[in-house]
This record gives sequence, structure tokens and C-alpha cells, in this order.
Amino acid sequence: MRDWAYLNRVVEGPSRPLQQLLAAGRDASEIAHGVRSRASWLGELAGQTAARATWDRAEEDLAAAAAVGARLITPECAEWPREEFDVAFGFAATGRSEHLRSYQDDAVPPHALWVRGGPLRPAVAQSVGVVGTRAATRYGLEATRQIATGLASHQWTVVSGGALGVDTVAHEAALGAGGLTVAVAACGIDRTYPARNAALFDRIAGQGVCVTEYPPGTPPQRHRFLTRNRLVAALTAGTVIVEAAWRSGALNTLSWAEGLGRVAMAVPGPITGAGSLGCHERIKEGRAQLVTGSDDIRALLGAAGALDVAEQYELAFAATPVQSLTRNELRVFDAIDPTGSVAQDIALGAGLPLPLTVHLLLELTKRGVVTREGTVWSRADRL
Amino acid sequence: MRDWAYLNRVVEGPSRPLQQLLAAGRDASEIAHGVRSRASWLGELAGQTAARATWDRAEEDLAAAAAVGARLITPECAEWPREEFDVAFGFAATGRSEHLRSYQDDAVPPHALWVRGGPLRPAVAQSVGVVGTRAATRYGLEATRQIATGLASHQWTVVSGGALGVDTVAHEAALGAGGLTVAVAACGIDRTYPARNAALFDRIAGQGVCVTEYPPGTPPQRHRFLTRNRLVAALTAGTVIVEAAWRSGALNTLSWAEGLGRVAMAVPGPITGAGSLGCHERIKEGRAQLVTGSDDIRALLGAAGALDVAEQYELAFAATPVQSLTRNELRVFDAIDPTGSVAQDIALGAGLPLPLTVHLLLELTKRGVVTREGTVWSRADRL
Repeated sequence: MRDWAYLNRVVEGPSRPLQQLLAAGRDASEIAHGVRSRASWLGELAGQTAARATWDRAEEDLAAAAAVGARLITPECAEWPREEFDVAFGFAATGRSEHLRSYQDDAVPPHALWVRGGPLRPAVAQSVGVVGTRAATRYGLEATRQIATGLASHQWTVVSGGALGVDTVAHEAALGAGGLTVAVAACGIDRTYPARNAALFDRIAGQGVCVTEYPPGTPPQRHRFLTRNRLVAALTAGTVIVEAAWRSGALNTLSWAEGLGRVAMAVPGPITGAGSLGCHERIKEGRAQLVTGSDDIRALLGAAGALDVAEQYELAFAATPVQSLTRNELRVFDAIDPTGSVAQDIALGAGLPLPLTVHLLLELTKRGVVTREGTVWSRADRL
Repeated sequence: MRDWAYLNRVVEGPSRPLQQLLAAGRDASEIAHGVRSRASWLGELAGQTAARATWDRAEEDLAAAAAVGARLITPECAEWPREEFDVAFGFAATGRSEHLRSYQDDAVPPHALWVRGGPLRPAVAQSVGVVGTRAATRYGLEATRQIATGLASHQWTVVSGGALGVDTVAHEAALGAGGLTVAVAACGIDRTYPARNAALFDRIAGQGVCVTEYPPGTPPQRHRFLTRNRLVAALTAGTVIVEAAWRSGALNTLSWAEGLGRVAMAVPGPITGAGSLGCHERIKEGRAQLVTGSDDIRALLGAAGALDVAEQYELAFAATPVQSLTRNELRVFDAIDPTGSVAQDIALGAGLPLPLTVHLLLELTKRGVVTREGTVWSRADRL
């Protein structure tokens, strides 16, 4: 574990050269020794470790993590989400998304993760990334609340960053519904960013997992948010952006979902503000599927037992008997005077032959939409 | 014209049998005579005219129309939108949309139209159907206003029904922006429905056109709204639904647009209410394209000079210099202490080799993102 901790600090993830050495069969101890001794076989890792090779703080880092109840996990641990990473980064290796043309070097798994809470793997086994802008509108927050609550109540884990706005509400709502969540940080496990979410992160660690790729003490910096985003996408079956304006960082997470072969989803919003511009553009470009709630999300992710949303609407917004009429039936029905009409007048009003009119009137009577008294036909009350 | 007026009343449009006789080369006078005399070659038109054949009110109908400043136009008139109908109903004849499986009999042009204002054909030459729910939310009305105003200010005609809610605001906004609109009614040209839109219809007739397929005095009835909807779709290059819940009649207009080969579009809205459910479902099903404004609509309809919306956003929401950095540039930039740092510390913080770090610092200095004083590098102020 010392070697992994050393490598975690000296090689800032993601590191493709380090992954290549691991894939070639060298273990952490061998690679750590190679980095310290500037071994000739390091290849590109030599450059990546040039600045920090002598920065050996493995003991201190492990102690700093332990002090906040955290631990280091590696590909050798049972809770390592190996399959998730294999699938996601395996897809990336064959994929050709525009995003990956810019970020190909980052499309590799982390070499180790610092976690608080857990275990990690079962927590993400059925999970969705829920992300969005920090500058959320009231609408964006309410939409986030609905979606996270719905996911949590169906035992889906919400995975997000720890930022204010959409991320924070996604965690809060899911936890409030009795679910568990995973927060992926862009700083050390012993840092609290943003500071006001300290209590939230404690709750997440209690019910779910706080996780980061970076060693203790690492400050949250812009470039780390970008690499952090790939982990949200890699750990989940799909990512949904709830509210994101034109240059929202949340769109970067969605691009990662796309590049890693995960399901990319976006929630629509009002066109009268700029808050959902990014969501709408992704839907227009065919790069994200429009979802209106957690049922849509679960259905897209192939959840067993997820109801078809259109079918639910059919039930929730039942058709009235009149809405179910065919057009000729409707012509006859419409031609009946509010106070009742004889068949000849109905035929004239409907512009249909009398025999057909009478046939349809009898049919409508059977269904209770029309009533008959002697020769007078009337519309049934209260339809 | 008397014969067309007679046929218009006796045969309630749309009538496929009547269209077939016209296509076979029989003219209006011949067909009118045939209907009156119950000619053997009437085919299915015999049944369609059985109830009303003796209802000859051609003079009265023409007079009633003239009394409100309206006239009857037919396929023989220069202002008849022949090409629009040929394209739309020609497409329908070969199309296989689910909607047309239910409404195949209605997928024919009107045989005559009553118009007030006009002429009709130039008014619809560059036009869009803008429709939506009567029970519009404040959001739906504002979205309608934005879209109709944008279309009108680019010389696009707004075509809609005359209902309260979205239809009414679409007309009002377009007229207010100096545009012209076309209102397609489901009742006689001499009827005002809804009554409170009387002044609006006068304004529409003054700047644009009020049009209906039905003879004077015809009451607005449900089945006529459904056939009216096909005219909104047929007359326009595309139809957009601005706000429509699950069973909104506006969805029927969109189905007609689809079935007639027109561009079907839908505006998204909040997922926290039911007002845009119908719009969202159509987008999800791939049956409507998501549009967020009149620029999107014009671009989809191939308007010359329509700007790409994404390009506009790129300009409107300009990237900051920092947002334009590559990830390695960002690593270097982020590693500079707020009070300035020497290159060695920056390399350590960024985890990059010193030579690469210095190279990137010089590059960032050229772009004005970083400044240098002696050996100390700083972030440029106010980025």
C-alpha cells in the first residue's frame, strides 16, 4: 500500500504511461522502485514523474487519510470497480468521440482512489451520474430534487461532484429519500470543498462514499475538475445533466459519458432563460437523450421493472369517452343538439348518410355516450 | 362559383371521393349537377351527399360571406395554395405515418376555402404553424411570444388556429412585431369563435388572412378542429408546438405535419409541471425536433441567412482566456500561487517536467494569461 500511496502522489492521475506499465505486468512495488531510481524502462512516465519523484510522503498521506476515516484502495482491492473501469475505458480506446480527441490522454482509469465510507463497488453497481450547474435556478434545483428522489426511492445510487447548486441538491434529495450517494471530489479526501458542504460530505460518507483520485492535501483546481468528471461518468451506467448553460462544466461530464460509452441524458427546461441552453443543445445535436424524470432514466438504463413513461401518462391522463371517438362518431356526436335531436337532423348536421348515422348513434348508445328517448337522441350527461 | 359554393355546403370537406372526381377531370359544375341528379358515376360521393344534396344555399352562402368581407376561393383561383397542397397531400399518399393510418380519408386538400383578407398564397409562401394548448401557463405564453415575435421580425408568417392561449398569443405577438398571420378556423367565416377574439380576427384579416374550409354559419365542433389542424400543417413549411400537455389537441396538428411531410418541431419546457409533457414525448420519440427559438425554426426550414444557433451562442457566451486553455496549460496555470511562484514550484504543483512547464509558461505569457517579473510568474489580473 506504501508503493501505491507513493505512486498516487508522484504520478498525478490519470496517467496513461503508468497504466501501460501496469498492463504490461509490472506491479506497484516494481514501478515505484523504477520511478525512484529513474529506471530506463519508465518511458513517458519518466517525464511525468520528473518533478515529484523525490516527493515521498506515502506514510504521511496514509496517516492523513486515516485521520479523517479514509483509506486508499487500488486495483488489488475487492471494492475496486474494476468492471466499470474496464468497460468504460475499453470503450474509450475504440471510441472516436470529438471529446476524446481532445482528452485521449486522460481516458484511462485512476491508479488508486482515496475513499471515505463505502465499500465503493457495490455503491456504484446501480448508479447514475446527476450533475449540473452551480448557478442553478429555482427550477433547476426543483428538477434535481425530483429526479434524485425518484432514483433513490428505486435503489439507484446518485453519483455527483460536491459543488453547490445541482450537485448538492442531488445528494441532499437522494439522502433524504433514504438512498445512498457517491461524491467524487477534485481535491484531497481531507479537504472540504466547498467548505459549507462539510456536514453533507459527512452524511454521504455515512450512507455512501466520498472518493477522490488525489492525495491528501491536494487543492481543488480547475484541471482536476475536468479529470474528476471522467470518474463520475466511468463509475455510472449513465449521466444526466439537469441544468447547464452554454459553458457549464457539467457538459464536460456529459461528454465523458458519451466518450466512455455511457448513456448521456439531459433534462429540458424553459427556453425563456439561458439555464438549460447546454441541455437543449446536446439534445438537438443528438448527443443526449431527453429525459423528464427518474422513470425515463431508469428505462433508458434498462432497469428491470421500469415502467414505460408513455404508458404511465396514458393511465394518469385518461382519455374521456369523447376523446376516444373516431372521427365519424365524433361528427355524429357533435351534430346532436344540446337539447336533443332527431336522427334526420343529426345526419344533416354531420353530413353523413342517415343509415350510417343511425348505426353510429346505436353504437354510441351502447357505450353510454349517447342516450335515446323515443325518436330523440341526446348526449349523455357529464362526459 | 355558385357550383363550388353548393359543393362546399353539400360535401363537408375533406372529401376524398370529390377529390377523385376532380382529379378524373370532372369540373365543379358537372359534379354539382351530378350530385343534384344523383348521377350513377358519383360513387362514394353519393353517400357523402345523401343527407345534404337538396340543401342548396349557394347564393345565401356567398352573400353571407360577402356581408363580412369574405369570398370563396377554389383551385381555379390564382391565390389557391396549389403547390403547398400538392406537396403535402402528395407526400401523405405515399407516407405511412401512424397518424395517417387513422386519418387517411382526411388526407386530401379542401375543395374550396372561404377567406377574409389575403391573398392567401403569398401569405403562406414563407410560413410556420405555431400552435399549443388553450390552457397555457405563463411560461407557455412567454415562450410563444418570443417565438412568434422572432418569426415575424424575419418576415415569416405565423399560421395558427384562433383558440385562446398559445394560438391567440402567437397571432398577437406576430402582429405586434409587424408581421402578418393566418388564422385557420373550424367554423364559418361569419362566425367568431371564441367570441372574445373578434377584434383579433379583424386585425388578422387586415394584415393577413382568416380562412376556413366550412360554409357560413357552420358551428365550431370538435371533429372540425381535427380536420382544420391538417390545413395548418399543409399550408406551412413546418409546425411547432410551443406548449402541449399529454392530450393536447395541438399534438394532432403536429401529427398532421408529420404525416404531410412537413417539419415537426416542439419547444421544451419545465419538467416540474405537466404543461410540456406532450412536447417532450414527441421529442423523445424522435417525432419532433427540439427547438428553442425562432432561429432554430428558421434554420430547420432552410431559411437563407439563418444563423447557426450554436455559433450564435459561442459568440454570445464568449469563452474566457482560461476556458480556452488546454489541460496541460491549465495544470500550469492552476499551479501558480495567487501571490506568484517560481518555475520549480509550478512544475511540482502541476506534476509536469520543468522544461515543459517553462515552455507552457512562456506560451501563456504570450497570450497575456500569465505575467513574469524576474523569476516569479503570476496570473494576469482579471481573467
